[in-house]
Formats: sequence, C-alpha cells, structure tokens
Amino acid sequence: MSDEKILLAHGSGGKLSHDLIEEIFLPEFSNPMLHPLDDSARIDPRTGPIAFTTDSYVVNPLFFPGGDIGRLAVCGTVNDLSMLGAIPAFLSLSFIIEEGFSISDFKRILSSIRKTAEEAGVEIVTGDTKVVEHGAADKLFVNTAGIGWIKDGLELSGTKAKPGDAILLNGFLGDHELTILSQREGFHFEGDLKSDCAPLNDLVQKMLGVCPSIRCMRDPTRGGLATTLNEIAHRSNVGIVLEEKEIPVRESVRGLCELLGLDPLYLANEGKLIALCPAEEARPLLDVMRAHPLGRESRIIGRVVAEHPRRVVLHTLIGGHRILDMLTGTQYPRIC
Amino acid sequence: MSDEKILLAHGSGGKLSHDLIEEIFLPEFSNPMLHPLDDSARIDPRTGPIAFTTDSYVVNPLFFPGGDIGRLAVCGTVNDLSMLGAIPAFLSLSFIIEEGFSISDFKRILSSIRKTAEEAGVEIVTGDTKVVEHGAADKLFVNTAGIGWIKDGLELSGTKAKPGDAILLNGFLGDHELTILSQREGFHFEGDLKSDCAPLNDLVQKMLGVCPSIRCMRDPTRGGLATTLNEIAHRSNVGIVLEEKEIPVRESVRGLCELLGLDPLYLANEGKLIALCPAEEARPLLDVMRAHPLGRESRIIGRVVAEHPRRVVLHTLIGGHRILDMLTGTQYPRIC
Repeated sequence: MSDEKILLAHGSGGKLSHDLIEEIFLPEFSNPMLHPLDDSARIDPRTGPIAFTTDSYVVNPLFFPGGDIGRLAVCGTVNDLSMLGAIPAFLSLSFIIEEGFSISDFKRILSSIRKTAEEAGVEIVTGDTKVVEHGAADKLFVNTAGIGWIKDGLELSGTKAKPGDAILLNGFLGDHELTILSQREGFHFEGDLKSDCAPLNDLVQKMLGVCPSIRCMRDPTRGGLATTLNEIAHRSNVGIVLEEKEIPVRESVRGLCELLGLDPLYLANEGKLIALCPAEEARPLLDVMRAHPLGRESRIIGRVVAEHPRRVVLHTLIGGHRILDMLTGTQYPRIC
Repeated sequence: MSDEKILLAHGSGGKLSHDLIEEIFLPEFSNPMLHPLDDSARIDPRTGPIAFTTDSYVVNPLFFPGGDIGRLAVCGTVNDLSMLGAIPAFLSLSFIIEEGFSISDFKRILSSIRKTAEEAGVEIVTGDTKVVEHGAADKLFVNTAGIGWIKDGLELSGTKAKPGDAILLNGFLGDHELTILSQREGFHFEGDLKSDCAPLNDLVQKMLGVCPSIRCMRDPTRGGLATTLNEIAHRSNVGIVLEEKEIPVRESVRGLCELLGLDPLYLANEGKLIALCPAEEARPLLDVMRAHPLGRESRIIGRVVAEHPRRVVLHTLIGGHRILDMLTGTQYPRIC
C-alpha cells in the first residue's frame, strides 16, 4: 500500500486508527509492554512497577469553555496513567509553536498547565520547545508524557473483563467534543455547555481504595464510549451489553446531537472513565464514585456477557437492540 | 510583555531560548527536579533513580544523508538520557501528521525508528498519533519521551564543573546542521557530508566504566558547542578555556562555514558529546573514547578555570583570544 495516504480518520481513535496500530505500528514495535495497548505502558523496573504514557494535543481552538490545550494536555496524560491504577507523579511537556504566536496566550496556557498540574498533584520535570515557520504548524501543539507509580499487585488491563462484570461510568457523555465543535463552528445555542476536562486520579484512587479488584478502567476520549467498550470486548474476548436508559447524557447535548446527526456514544470525553468490576462489588464502588465531585452522576450502565464475544450491544430506550461498532471514518479532527 | 510574539529564535537553543526558560517556564514550573536544567530530569522514585526526558522533532527535510526524523527522534532522546549517565530503557513515541502524508514515507520513518531503537537497545512502550488538516502542520512532527536507569551514586550535572577539569569531545563538529542546510538549500557541493546522528549510550557507559567521576556530560545540539559550554560555565559558576587547534572540524565543514559565514562552534550536532572530568583522569578516558566507533576523533579540547567565571574563552589558532557567547538570535529553524 505504498501510495496510500494518511487520512484524518487515522487520527480519529476509530477503526482506521486501530488498523494503523495493528498493521503499521505493531509489526515494527511489538513487545510485551506495548502489546496490551492499554492507555499507559506498564513497565517493570528494577523494583516496583511504574506507568509511562504520552499524548500529543492539537485541539482547535486552543481555549474553550471548561479548559484549554494546556489543561487538556495535563488531564489527558494524568488520566491515561490513572487508567492503569497508577498514581501520576511526573510529566514531561513539549511544545511545537508557530512563529508569531502570542506570548501572552502562551503564558496563559503555561499558567493553566501549572494550575492543572497542582490540581492533579503532578510535577512537570522535563520539557522542550520547538518553533516552526509561520504556516508550518497551526498556532501551537503540546505533547505530554507521564510517569506514575503502580501499587504492587495492581494489574488493571483491558484484557481482563469477565462475564458477569458490571460496567460503571462517572457521568454525562459528550460534553467535551460538543463544546469544541460549538466553539469552532460558532454555534450560538451552546447554552452552559462546557468541556468536562478534569484530572481523574483522585477519583480513581478512591475507587481502588474501596474496590481493588477493578478489572479495567479506560477513559473514553476519541471514539467515545462505544469505541472504548469495543476495544475491551475485543481484547478480553467477551460480549458487552449496555442499557441506554442508564447512560447519562445532558439534555442540551442530546438536543445538539439530534440536530447535527451525532451519537453521544461516539463523542470524545476528557473527564470520564468507565470501570469494570465484579458484579457484587459494583454497588459499594458506585457509592464511592457518587460521593466524589467528579462522579456525582455515576451509573452502572451495563455488564459483560459470555454471549456475542467481541460485540457491544445496546438495549435501547424503546426496547430494541442495536449493535455498537467502533467509530468508523472521521469524526472531527483536532478535538483534543 | 503581553504583545510580544514567539520568534524563531525562541526555539534556537540560544539566548532567547534561555530567556524563555528563565523568564517564562521556571516561574511557572520551578521544582528541584526541573531546576538543574540538565538534558534529563533526575527523578528519585521509591527506589533507584530513573531519568525521564522528552523532545519534539520538526526537522525539515524528513530524510537526509545519515538519518531521518525517526532516527533523530530516537537518538535525541537516548542521548539526553545518556547525558545523565542513565542507561536508556523505554521510549514513548507520538506523531502529529498532516493529512495526506504518504503511508510509505511513514513506514520508512517507523522502520528507521525501530532499527535505531534496536541499535540503542531501547524499547518503544507507548505512543499516540494525531492527524491534522492539510496545511495545519508541515508533513510530520515526532515527539519522543524516554526513561532510563541511573546507577546509584551517579550524579552527573551541569552544575558540577570544577576548576582544573578537562573537557573532552568525541569528534567532528557541525556535520548534522550543515547536512540539513545543504539538503534544504539544494547546495551541490556537499560532498560526502552526512549527519552524525547516532545513539551515544554505549559510548557513555564505556566512558563511565573507566571514569565514574565524570562531572558532567552534554550533547551539543541546538546552539552548538559554544552554547552548551556557556550553559555549564553559568550553572557551575566557572570559566572555560578552549583550544581552537584541538577542536575537530572536517575540512568540508570548515570550507562550507566560511562560504556561508557560519561558525562550526555554534552548529548543531546529533552524535556528539562533551564530558568534563578531573584532569588526572582525562587520559584514560580519552583512550576509551578513541577505542569506540563513535569516538575515534575524540580530543581534549579545553579546561575549566577559576578565572573569568561564567565566560568561555577560545584560544585561537593564530594565538589570540575570543570570547564565545551563547548563540544569539536565530540560527536556522527546523534542524532537529
């Protein structure tokens, strides 16, 4: 496929992203740490395990209700570490900036990064800045990598879902992506819509405190809840059933989605997580989540089943069934 | 300075880069690990220390004699870890790609990354890809972050230079930057000029094997040897004297520099290091360096002095003295 081109969908988190990983990345880089394809790499150093992850951020616009590219870059990496159960500790920070970018906007972003890092209890310990000619990059891109400490014995992974497990979600879907779209397209009916961008590490540690047997956690960013659950169904070779009536979506988001022909289950979130745990532990886990500021709207949204392995099925509000596939093709570029 | 703009020189590694760090980064992010401003952050985890670093790569063109952006990204991060004396172990890898980029070129870059990672003995353990619209980035940018293990007791730092120390360099200066410029400007008199891009970790470990009391190592990339030595002189509050006749520069590079009005002491290198060590250990260290394929042309190029603290002085070929300042203003953008 020597003449094929990189498409926007290769960066969407959906089907083509997965093809890219399976067909292009893994043949080059396969190793036991990369292979689970969890949000962070689990590394066994000389002593206790550490988590290490990276993400680049290209969101447009740079500033939006509920956050900015800096807050997003810290939260994204903190959350990826947290999904392994790690306590995020150290971040790196690297910028690619277009010549002519405003210093005051840059300072505003740095300040937001500092505040978010304080909020998450992490430190930026190394960094880099490259500047490119006007027109060679659109304003500013950020990369963060992160290191976190994993408590010995904790081995969360998307490969560990088991039939019977409950699936929990900590709140409303779709706020982040719809906020970005509204800003970019200049919609004026956005109301009080804002990004859910937030560091989830404190919530995660409280969840693990009450339920150390959580099988797996993931943050449904690009590709949304449906794509994330498909990944887990594939990697654990299980089926997943979701109850539409239990999935929290704001009225404003639902309305906007209908208008735009979007599905909230495929929208990117930046302050949401799903957790899978043994059914009997779901209730106390839910209580802990609801007691946390970032989990007030938590719900048990579905369960893992032995039937239809590698398939995610939605029980709809009107009593039907709908198979939820991974996101295919492009959603919107530069939402994170 | 709310109306100031980011200039190309802010990413040059020279004076304005330093101002950016001192005036804009440090006030936001000051912490004991970031503060030494060495090439990697030294992190004290629950047990043995680890090194953690990051760099983004925006080199143009993507492919050049002696390497490509992928090889550069691995070598750059491996070398930054090595400069702390760490054994590089794990890399992250994150791409920002312009829509429409050729898959075959992308595969070529990934393949180069894999080969270079094998050469350096490191593994890519986590990654990310973002794709942006045509025109929002120039072809492809890469970020790598890295983790390495630091042997207990080893504390290399740019703050540790002492009067009397010898300064060693492992070979010819300027090959990388002149190669990139030649490619970009379409010079046809480049001869056999190619980038020196190489992973230095094996050389470094052999150097530390014979001389564990090395005070400090740095790789003179953006800003070149002169800027790197200025950084050390400032951070250790010492003077530095260089002997021009001992500084290895290829005839082809010297000729091209004269033609273009460039100074090899300010050109970026990607396979070079300087090491400072107690004078009495310089000879055995030099022998080990010369025995290594990446150190055949090693020389003792100068010494640390108590006189003229924070100043680097060059003893010129013709017997004069020249003060070498940090690189000021823009050199060339996108050389790494």
